[in-house]
Amino acid sequence: MKRIENIAETYQHLQTEICSSLENADGKGKFSHDNWEKEIGGGVTAVLQNGVIIEKGAVNFSFVKGKFSSRMEKLLCEKAENYAATGVSSILHPENPWMPIIHMNVRYFALDNGISWFGGGIDLTPHIIEPENTAEFHTALKTTCDQFDSRFYPEFKEWADDYYFLPHRNETRGVGGIFFDRLKYDSQEEFEKLFNFTVALSQLYPVIYTSFMKKHSNRPYSEREKNWQALRRGRYVEFNLMHDRGTKFGLESGGNTESILASLPAGAAWEYNYSPQPGGFEEKTLSLLKKGIDWINPKNNP
Amino acid sequence: MKRIENIAETYQHLQTEICSSLENADGKGKFSHDNWEKEIGGGVTAVLQNGVIIEKGAVNFSFVKGKFSSRMEKLLCEKAENYAATGVSSILHPENPWMPIIHMNVRYFALDNGISWFGGGIDLTPHIIEPENTAEFHTALKTTCDQFDSRFYPEFKEWADDYYFLPHRNETRGVGGIFFDRLKYDSQEEFEKLFNFTVALSQLYPVIYTSFMKKHSNRPYSEREKNWQALRRGRYVEFNLMHDRGTKFGLESGGNTESILASLPAGAAWEYNYSPQPGGFEEKTLSLLKKGIDWINPKNNP
Repeated sequence: MKRIENIAETYQHLQTEICSSLENADGKGKFSHDNWEKEIGGGVTAVLQNGVIIEKGAVNFSFVKGKFSSRMEKLLCEKAENYAATGVSSILHPENPWMPIIHMNVRYFALDNGISWFGGGIDLTPHIIEPENTAEFHTALKTTCDQFDSRFYPEFKEWADDYYFLPHRNETRGVGGIFFDRLKYDSQEEFEKLFNFTVALSQLYPVIYTSFMKKHSNRPYSEREKNWQALRRGRYVEFNLMHDRGTKFGLESGGNTESILASLPAGAAWEYNYSPQPGGFEEKTLSLLKKGIDWINPKNNP
Repeated sequence: MKRIENIAETYQHLQTEICSSLENADGKGKFSHDNWEKEIGGGVTAVLQNGVIIEKGAVNFSFVKGKFSSRMEKLLCEKAENYAATGVSSILHPENPWMPIIHMNVRYFALDNGISWFGGGIDLTPHIIEPENTAEFHTALKTTCDQFDSRFYPEFKEWADDYYFLPHRNETRGVGGIFFDRLKYDSQEEFEKLFNFTVALSQLYPVIYTSFMKKHSNRPYSEREKNWQALRRGRYVEFNLMHDRGTKFGLESGGNTESILASLPAGAAWEYNYSPQPGGFEEKTLSLLKKGIDWINPKNNP
């Protein structure tokens, strides 16, 4: 079995790769790389602020170990003394409202009772939903998933719809993507497959986003799109602070606050009883924040 | 015993009074009054947006009833079949960064097992802390508390320090104030005392804030103060979405989302690894976001 140290090494290397791809595509913004060390372990927080295309983006690597608290036992429904975890997590907030927010995470979690698993996903939150761009995004995810297991995309797509959901708003966070957790394995072969799957997703991530950057980052916009972007970022903040398991787990386990909350946008807005103009892109976007949409084959939608 | 219906009537009347005092002091802003009704009950959400002094403010009244779920049992450590609750809750976000954010809540909670209690408080979150203004605020709270019970102010001040605290930031939300919960009673006299105390606090609330408005709402400010205000609002959002019990309880019990989240500011900002200029008001403010400060008698502080 590959040990968690090896996985961490690969993940840290992937962090570096993601940062340089994104820096190249942005052309101006540079990631700061901050090493942090705390009682529970350490990591490298890479943050890019005020790029040309990326207004605020974080690519975090961490490798932590600690006591498996009763709180974590409840959260994860597992019994153990100690845990170790490593992962890469990223969120990018673009300047241009026609560009989407994107999120990626891959992680490996090992308990000292012998149980370990992979988790992760990639999901997209366009401020303004355009079905053709969403179809392209989902197709890219499906293609990568299918290289590993044809059951992955349909299963993990549904999981993302359920996970990236704000119950109090009755809205999905965006157009979903894939989400998976607790992918356990019982052979070296299975382990390799899952590990390689997380590596492939980390490599796909900058490819997807730089494609968006090339196509959409120069599109003109007005105050109307910027205001709408700020409101959608408000919803993103709601999800991250209220529902995101990584944020919750990170803060509760004594992780690095600045690193964990580097995922928040530079700015966000809230308006009481906002109501969209009939027929505008805002209304259309709201109408598409639903679970269960088949983005790749729109004919399958009711 | 006064029934919850009578308490609700008084609280709703207090909402109206608070709104008109604030409208008068603002001079331009008007509260919209939205009645809402859901399965669990109803309320009136009063929101003022884009006043001269108040950028966004909410004064909410609600009166709800429902099944006391197992989730609530855990949250409140009580056993019962049904509950009823009524309260007034308000948060004001000013335009001028020299003005503080203020929050007030009074509530009555009754279970069908015969147990009922009052809760509430007032707390202040200056974007820029000025100890003399904070002393005035705490003195006003103490004066009202002392009219009911000399133990109230010291006890509830400490409770506020503990409650309005962000563990992941190791910061208090602001300069505290008073907070109390589960104030039970075992005589009509005790009931009257607690009920009248919550009424007195609701009446004190606009008096405190209009005094701030008169003194500070015309103070000049620059982009520096506005940027700082946006960052402090970011912290306020973190508290409300992650820690505020009323928000949590309201959303979980199926309350009115727009009404509950009307407490969020119009805008907020986050900056990775923000570090204040040495000697500036930002650094001074951060140094005062601590529990246990005696604002009224600064000589008592170490």
